[in-house]
Amino acid sequence: MIKINENFLKLQTGYLFPEISRRVKAFKKANQKARIISLGIGDVTEPLPPAITKAMHKAVDEMGRRETFRGYGPEQGYDFLIEAIIENDYRQRGVELDGSEVFISDGTKCDIGNFQEILGTDNVVAIPDPVYPVYVDSNVMAGRSGPADKNGQYAGIVYLPCTAENNFVPELPSEPVDIIYLCFPNNPTGAVATKGQLSRWVDFARENKAIILFDAAYEAFISQAEIPHSIYEIDGAKEVAVEFRSFSKSAGFTGIRCAFTVVPSQLKAYTSNGAAVEVKGRWHRRHCTKFNGTSFISQAAAAAVYTEEGREQVRKIIDIYMSNAALIRQSLIKLGYKVYGGINAPYIWLKTQNGPSSWGFFDRLLQKAHVVGTPGSGFGPSGEEYFRLSAFGRPEDVKEAMQRFSCL
Amino acid sequence: MIKINENFLKLQTGYLFPEISRRVKAFKKANQKARIISLGIGDVTEPLPPAITKAMHKAVDEMGRRETFRGYGPEQGYDFLIEAIIENDYRQRGVELDGSEVFISDGTKCDIGNFQEILGTDNVVAIPDPVYPVYVDSNVMAGRSGPADKNGQYAGIVYLPCTAENNFVPELPSEPVDIIYLCFPNNPTGAVATKGQLSRWVDFARENKAIILFDAAYEAFISQAEIPHSIYEIDGAKEVAVEFRSFSKSAGFTGIRCAFTVVPSQLKAYTSNGAAVEVKGRWHRRHCTKFNGTSFISQAAAAAVYTEEGREQVRKIIDIYMSNAALIRQSLIKLGYKVYGGINAPYIWLKTQNGPSSWGFFDRLLQKAHVVGTPGSGFGPSGEEYFRLSAFGRPEDVKEAMQRFSCL
Repeated sequence: MIKINENFLKLQTGYLFPEISRRVKAFKKANQKARIISLGIGDVTEPLPPAITKAMHKAVDEMGRRETFRGYGPEQGYDFLIEAIIENDYRQRGVELDGSEVFISDGTKCDIGNFQEILGTDNVVAIPDPVYPVYVDSNVMAGRSGPADKNGQYAGIVYLPCTAENNFVPELPSEPVDIIYLCFPNNPTGAVATKGQLSRWVDFARENKAIILFDAAYEAFISQAEIPHSIYEIDGAKEVAVEFRSFSKSAGFTGIRCAFTVVPSQLKAYTSNGAAVEVKGRWHRRHCTKFNGTSFISQAAAAAVYTEEGREQVRKIIDIYMSNAALIRQSLIKLGYKVYGGINAPYIWLKTQNGPSSWGFFDRLLQKAHVVGTPGSGFGPSGEEYFRLSAFGRPEDVKEAMQRFSCL
Repeated sequence: MIKINENFLKLQTGYLFPEISRRVKAFKKANQKARIISLGIGDVTEPLPPAITKAMHKAVDEMGRRETFRGYGPEQGYDFLIEAIIENDYRQRGVELDGSEVFISDGTKCDIGNFQEILGTDNVVAIPDPVYPVYVDSNVMAGRSGPADKNGQYAGIVYLPCTAENNFVPELPSEPVDIIYLCFPNNPTGAVATKGQLSRWVDFARENKAIILFDAAYEAFISQAEIPHSIYEIDGAKEVAVEFRSFSKSAGFTGIRCAFTVVPSQLKAYTSNGAAVEVKGRWHRRHCTKFNGTSFISQAAAAAVYTEEGREQVRKIIDIYMSNAALIRQSLIKLGYKVYGGINAPYIWLKTQNGPSSWGFFDRLLQKAHVVGTPGSGFGPSGEEYFRLSAFGRPEDVKEAMQRFSCL
């Protein structure tokens, strides 16, 4: 008799975005003339710039001619892209990587969801709260948790509260943990970690033989020079950290699908007998067995991000989003809100005024201002009484949304 | 301390294609003037036809304009593609499907590798021999096997020999099994299953509450009218089977990445208490959690396969490959080989003459004819003394390869 993976039955059904979508739908039905502005879901809104579409047209043409047609590419990705990544994202910041350490994929969500698979199910997982739900859910599916409590937190997972008191950078855990998820610049709080803060985590991981899964998908939004873009800017990080990066938010690739993961050769995990095993080799095996390479068109598009033209055009788009972020910050501060993020990240994390719950604030904002955002509690209990606004959107919409905030 | 998933350490390292590549490299070094013809790896060689590149150019242009730009698509795929699939691949063959039962992805290898994840690790797996290695390896990684023996077969897996005696369609197992992998048209043997043969498997699965994971990636190569294209042409199959399909071989998408998986609503798996659980809902959750949709450009390209123009152009390409297959078959039969496949599949499975081993035949073919193929034993012990030739290649190369065979 075919058995289901019963870990899937532990998963909480109330996923955040479907619930938002349900409430918005109901509001629209009752208020058909209202023009809703969404600063909710973290999806890009600016079209792909010409340097990128030009590269994609060229790649399509190559696929249509016998002499330049390409079938299966290397599972790990084309050298032309891997080399551009190493040179631009790493060497220029003083980090040396070998081509075998970079794995091109079709998304950070996929990589970060799949990576835990090469690690034992008996590892203890530490996860920030609030957090992007994929980190937790993929571990629940794999059996690294017990059932959920009424807050939606799972037994056996070590939660690391991120609050205004710790500047949304979690404290080191007081109990032993093996797999640590960190995300900076952070979704949803928009926080960043300094070199000093990251160093403490790297040192902790080295002392405890833990692994850090570092989600750097929003790295391109960092504006302050002293903030590290890669965890490998921290001494010793190559021994303990995997880094996930994406073209989704930086270059508008949410519909194109291209990302990459760095797994340093030095990184080791251990057998139950204590023998060290190279992690990179296991990820390579997983990648080659269960993945068949990223679309050549998407890889050609990603390579165009690193050309002079591409870099300038992409920069301009990021500037649009970060101007939105600045406007949101300033407007909310003027209105007396406590506001976090939005300086090195496209997310603004605000404290709901006079203490309504996250969902209470969601409903008020929708009803009174016809603006949609994301309730902080959807990312975890420490997000209660917080609210996420996304800087992805058209400047004119963001401006109008901010005017409407003043009527709340 | 971070523990590795020790199941990965059971995996056999000697993967087939790297070994082929090593031997070819050594031969080339010693014989620099030899012009090698490869009928080895199953990768397409014809460029994408104009109807498809036209659709891709249009999609790229849409991504470059504000009004038509698309960010994240639905994780499950765009309706325009799902509807085209249901209408053309299923309704026209008498199979009704709902849109919620079709999941667009970036490859059958990915889907078939990942699908086992939603099933319990205590299920017994039945796998044909010879076989595409991903079925086995993904189950070994998940812990559904013990260690490998000297033939590379894993303890706890039930192997189903496919031989000339059973026309390469395996017999029903004599012991209880829960997960059954079937692939028709078959890679590597090129065999197909009749409706009667598939019905026996569907009935077996229904009686034993087993699940069939049916790999139909080569369905487009079927030429004989009586051969089923989908397992859902068999009564009751929706209760027990998942079907995997791909645009890779049919439309030349190995570098573009688009495929789909059908999970019928009727399909159930069970908890340890015997409660029935809908499989589709669990796959949906897995798909939405660990996957972020297929590139819009790839989905637009796939939709073009179903236009009148697209269908005709793709048909012509398949005809090229199947003419190659026919030439290979005829030539080898004339030379006295026992030959299988090549009528409803782009693979020809030949019995090595006078009994050399698969690798012995590989070496002789390379040395004497400068032709590369794939040793049957690489797909499992029942493939020993067999050899796979692929019909993917330029017609002039295939013709020359066949002339060279006569000198063996």
